[in-house]
Amino acid sequence: MSASLSSLDTPVALLDVSRMQHNIQRMQQRMNELGVRLRPHVKTSKCLPVIQAQIAAGASGVTVSTLKEAEHCFAEGIDDVFYAVAIAPGKLEQALRLRRKGCRLSILTDSVTAARAIVAFGQAHDERFDVWIEIDCDGHRSGLTVDDPSLVEVASTLVDGGMQLRGVMTHAGSSYDLDTPAALQALAEQERRLCVSAAERIRQAGLPCADVSIGSTPTALSAQSLHGVTEVRAGVYVFFDLVMHNIGVCQADELALSVLTTVIGHQQDKGWIIVDAGWMAMSRDRGTQRQSEDFGYGQVCSESGEWIDGARVTGANQEHGIITLAAGSEADISERFPIGSRLRILPNHACATGAQFPDYHACDSEGAIHTWSRLHGW
Amino acid sequence: MSASLSSLDTPVALLDVSRMQHNIQRMQQRMNELGVRLRPHVKTSKCLPVIQAQIAAGASGVTVSTLKEAEHCFAEGIDDVFYAVAIAPGKLEQALRLRRKGCRLSILTDSVTAARAIVAFGQAHDERFDVWIEIDCDGHRSGLTVDDPSLVEVASTLVDGGMQLRGVMTHAGSSYDLDTPAALQALAEQERRLCVSAAERIRQAGLPCADVSIGSTPTALSAQSLHGVTEVRAGVYVFFDLVMHNIGVCQADELALSVLTTVIGHQQDKGWIIVDAGWMAMSRDRGTQRQSEDFGYGQVCSESGEWIDGARVTGANQEHGIITLAAGSEADISERFPIGSRLRILPNHACATGAQFPDYHACDSEGAIHTWSRLHGW
Repeated sequence: MSASLSSLDTPVALLDVSRMQHNIQRMQQRMNELGVRLRPHVKTSKCLPVIQAQIAAGASGVTVSTLKEAEHCFAEGIDDVFYAVAIAPGKLEQALRLRRKGCRLSILTDSVTAARAIVAFGQAHDERFDVWIEIDCDGHRSGLTVDDPSLVEVASTLVDGGMQLRGVMTHAGSSYDLDTPAALQALAEQERRLCVSAAERIRQAGLPCADVSIGSTPTALSAQSLHGVTEVRAGVYVFFDLVMHNIGVCQADELALSVLTTVIGHQQDKGWIIVDAGWMAMSRDRGTQRQSEDFGYGQVCSESGEWIDGARVTGANQEHGIITLAAGSEADISERFPIGSRLRILPNHACATGAQFPDYHACDSEGAIHTWSRLHGW
Repeated sequence: MSASLSSLDTPVALLDVSRMQHNIQRMQQRMNELGVRLRPHVKTSKCLPVIQAQIAAGASGVTVSTLKEAEHCFAEGIDDVFYAVAIAPGKLEQALRLRRKGCRLSILTDSVTAARAIVAFGQAHDERFDVWIEIDCDGHRSGLTVDDPSLVEVASTLVDGGMQLRGVMTHAGSSYDLDTPAALQALAEQERRLCVSAAERIRQAGLPCADVSIGSTPTALSAQSLHGVTEVRAGVYVFFDLVMHNIGVCQADELALSVLTTVIGHQQDKGWIIVDAGWMAMSRDRGTQRQSEDFGYGQVCSESGEWIDGARVTGANQEHGIITLAAGSEADISERFPIGSRLRILPNHACATGAQFPDYHACDSEGAIHTWSRLHGW
């Protein structure tokens, strides 16, 4: 890989394709064993070759976080798309356009108000939207709790209004706060149980609720049973990152995304190595700050990818990153990391770091580097 | 502005052009009074119409943080460009290409090693690069201190090697940690004094050092004298943001950048208003976290821009923002902020939030909205 790597200007986002394929296989195999469909969340990569690799490995349909992602996937022949953010009524027009082109777009709601807006718009345009209801399984964000009085009302509003109620979905986002297998397994079971219970409540009211969709990378990799679940959505597993490493669901050699950077200076007295990857490259995500190990703005590796213990990006300006070594390190930084030499930085959060770049430089096992473009904006 | 605003899908980055023009005039007038050239830093906007407005108001040349910005500006006829990040030797080829096309590109170094690399490359290609030396005035980042033994050696390396030593530059980045006029004035004076002293040390060694360039928005707006300084670089003043507001160098009605967002849900029990601007729109920048007032991920305003006291984005997932109101607020959030209604969010850090968007929607005083594209990547 080195000969091609040296041709790249820095900073760039590098993808290790072998690691990515390993990660895709790992999650797909697990979902196959648990007997559920995997509908990967494309918000992590926002990149078609990555999504195609997930589908080639057995994933079925995609989850998106913006309608731009939906349009992008559909334009490339992926027609089963779940827009997994509660829809703003103002976006129904755009959703309708996608459906009229043949996209089986699913939309999401967690309120009677929005359900009524969907029904009104759907009836006015003679469109039977595919709609899911969001369930709150951990108090983390949005969704209705399983015992919320309006759960059945949302469902009946949709069904009575002629919409296609597809099912219920939830996201155990609080899994990011955990770091033991026992706690992760317990939350995965809670996510499963509450989402399945919500579906049962709706069914008991005589309404259809065929599908139960759950998902977060940590719970997907921790669940012991997915009884009653029909699909799993997960995203960051495709690259993994330091947050996932701290949570304990991946190993260091599974991190597929890194930022290649160049040393541009030193502050010898302070032990600072200055590189050309600041927060504009790494993002401002400090997701490991309150975890067991704080990696600053990223863990530093050699150009070829070997983890340098204790070397982290501890400061970040827009285009300047400041790397420091572990306390007690006796290295002459100018000798060991000379100006012009290159390093790789593993990110805290792959979704956030990826978003800083217009494209990935994907390095395959033969050492070839491919430029894969990413979506930007909405 | 409202009629056109309602046509925009959310989230979008809104620019209030009147405020921006006011900010540009304010800084330009101040620099004119202090008798120095203003060379605005375009890393904040990365947007040509903004840069053109700065030049139309009297700015002279530009400061850039990437060579992509340099190429972009030069392609639009701006030929005096200062790339104000210590140059990696691997980028000299790209710098040479720009100069060969006629761009008066200045580059920067703070080490003998890099100065030698510049000389070697310049001599090999018969190019007399315009080079500046970076001075460290506050221990904040990179640069040589005024008493560093290698300061004169860097200068003589460049001059003896046939390069054009243009001058010295510094950036008082630690101004972001201050919030009183007295402290800001003192740091501005320290920035001026140390950078001028560095120039004098070089001149005393018999070497040319015509220019003295300083700059940060807080110090530029606080300096009482710029004696000995020839130019000021500043960036974020063009939009301002909540960090600048906390520092005390702008008023709330000078913040020109905001993110327009739509309410997509509520968690009534928790007092959460869920909007479609998460960290992907606001960035992960938490620059106000350790300031006098922590604005979370942003201060919330009405759609037309009125500041809603105590309303802040206190949580952010990728596409979900969670807004909470001030403690003790008795508002029925579903009534006051119904699903589908719109809000504006003022960002902590304009440079970071702007970077999340492919373009700005610039609203002029007649209410027209123009789409202005931004640079993305390197």
